[in-house]
Amino acid sequence: MGGGPIKEHVLIALPLPEPTSLLDDLRSRFSHIDITYHQAHPDQNTPQSIFAPATVLVTFNTLPDDPSASAPNLTWLHLFSAGSNHIQQHPIYTHSKTTITTSSGVHGPTIAEWAVLTRLVLSRNYKTLYELQKQHSWSSRAAGVSSVRDQVGATLGVLGYGSIGRQIARVARGLGMRVLAYTATPKDSAAKRRDGGFVVPGTGDVEGEIPEKWFSGLGKAELHEFLRQGIDWLVVSVPLTEQTRGFLGKEEFEVLKEAGGPAFVTNIARGPIVDQEALVAALKDGTVAGAALDVTDPEPLPESSELWDLENVVVTPHISGSGVAYEERAFQVLEVNLGRRERGEDLINVVKRERGY
Amino acid sequence: MGGGPIKEHVLIALPLPEPTSLLDDLRSRFSHIDITYHQAHPDQNTPQSIFAPATVLVTFNTLPDDPSASAPNLTWLHLFSAGSNHIQQHPIYTHSKTTITTSSGVHGPTIAEWAVLTRLVLSRNYKTLYELQKQHSWSSRAAGVSSVRDQVGATLGVLGYGSIGRQIARVARGLGMRVLAYTATPKDSAAKRRDGGFVVPGTGDVEGEIPEKWFSGLGKAELHEFLRQGIDWLVVSVPLTEQTRGFLGKEEFEVLKEAGGPAFVTNIARGPIVDQEALVAALKDGTVAGAALDVTDPEPLPESSELWDLENVVVTPHISGSGVAYEERAFQVLEVNLGRRERGEDLINVVKRERGY
Repeated sequence: MGGGPIKEHVLIALPLPEPTSLLDDLRSRFSHIDITYHQAHPDQNTPQSIFAPATVLVTFNTLPDDPSASAPNLTWLHLFSAGSNHIQQHPIYTHSKTTITTSSGVHGPTIAEWAVLTRLVLSRNYKTLYELQKQHSWSSRAAGVSSVRDQVGATLGVLGYGSIGRQIARVARGLGMRVLAYTATPKDSAAKRRDGGFVVPGTGDVEGEIPEKWFSGLGKAELHEFLRQGIDWLVVSVPLTEQTRGFLGKEEFEVLKEAGGPAFVTNIARGPIVDQEALVAALKDGTVAGAALDVTDPEPLPESSELWDLENVVVTPHISGSGVAYEERAFQVLEVNLGRRERGEDLINVVKRERGY
Repeated sequence: MGGGPIKEHVLIALPLPEPTSLLDDLRSRFSHIDITYHQAHPDQNTPQSIFAPATVLVTFNTLPDDPSASAPNLTWLHLFSAGSNHIQQHPIYTHSKTTITTSSGVHGPTIAEWAVLTRLVLSRNYKTLYELQKQHSWSSRAAGVSSVRDQVGATLGVLGYGSIGRQIARVARGLGMRVLAYTATPKDSAAKRRDGGFVVPGTGDVEGEIPEKWFSGLGKAELHEFLRQGIDWLVVSVPLTEQTRGFLGKEEFEVLKEAGGPAFVTNIARGPIVDQEALVAALKDGTVAGAALDVTDPEPLPESSELWDLENVVVTPHISGSGVAYEERAFQVLEVNLGRRERGEDLINVVKRERGY
């Protein structure tokens, strides 16, 4: 190593074939930095020697077993995932001061589309329309559309007004909805309402100007105040933390129903935020009008779960954020942060260990 | 009749049970007007005597057989439909100067939702996701999501920038899309870009500020110029007129593909605007990427049509505008126009016979 300053070395370790054109772009923009690629194989042990030169590690979950031994130069871990909870037991998280950033923000548009799609699938009886198409049946009566109500004037409650929630809010406003936002900490100034993380250009709500009203807190009383606002569609887009585990259960569904009639619930965050047994019961007895779940508890959702067959439920296998744009946008975040690091500016999307995301 | 002025008498003839609360609202607002209701039965002849006192007739298609004989006082026909082409052979249209207004505008949000839903059903592989759910299968690989692309940065071309097209544009902008508009006549001033018809509050694009660029004309050259703009999603929302019959065919699909790759085509207007045989061929050979059709030619779509079984097609039985909000919004248009008529102002949503809508 000699005595000079350590040369910046970005190790990108992903379970994908080498994304050559994205890497080429990155290398041409940061020609003075070493950028190496390692294709991770989820089923195999990672050779620990690859971490030795890395000052920056870019990965989903390919981590050194013993960071201080095998990755002595590492000062920054950039996760390609939106969250960090899958690594929160790892020594890099628990026993190092390595800066950790996430790709939070890249999923916004893709997940928001999924949320809008599945909301409309259920409100517009699409399952029935699809079955009619399969039967070659032109029956508007069977389509059951006379009871359909569009979203104009309905109220969307976004529990967790982050990058995904903001983009759902943006589309919902387009659909003519009223939007309410809920955040862990109070957003009582324009600066706090601002989205300081990565935002896909042309999407989201950077300034936080869409919600008609803001709510905050992590206690039951604050949550219930929010749920009492006549919400028709509740989107769960909070990170999974010890505070949000089991955040929504029987009581919350009842509060929702009392305030504005049975609501529709979308979970694109993490399964354990919702008490799934309580949700199934509420779906069956009409306390909750319907649900769209891209995440469940556990995953995979057991074949025997009642959720699969409920008419008013859409379940998908944690795919709402998947797509071709994911990788290129995750590289955009990396590029933004490499530039910021070079200029000595604060990185975006930094995980705050004390709050857990 | 005596010699005094004829008293305003609104006859509402709809194929629905009497909508008492909507009628009560209307009667309390216009207490000096006679408002009568006739439940039309599509399978029965309408007694012609009901039309005698009417100065205003509000209906879908319950019309006097011989207007000059049985509806001598009629000066205004308000259609509950968005278009008027179903009555354009009727003597009221061809041989009278009776003012005809439509409920154009009330469908905007409902049809726009259908258009967005079905666009996303196909771009997000929802048919496959639904089949997986039916099989209780948590298989992200089978879900085929890795090739999914969200709509950020994609180009929507709205052929017919009326109330429906404007609301689709509004949601598309929310999704991060670029919007191009096409209209029959040039919209070369702010006043012309304005939506002068009925707009459901909180929806649409009243000022016409969403499109990045406007195109116009009814000739092939102008149409092709529009289709050459790299459109990813083409929405057909023009009225059916002699000029728009067969407006889109083999040649147009090829122009679209040459310019921006195979596009996705949505038709929420009328079936005959699209050459259906050419569309089927284009869908099969990849010239068109997919289609969402709520209208077909003919309707009902014959059971033997190939459209039903194409994987990249959604067909529904002309229901995109159906729903509970329809009736209350159609009454809102009537109310707006009754107020305008009373104050001697121009009515909104007036059909111009010379252009056919």
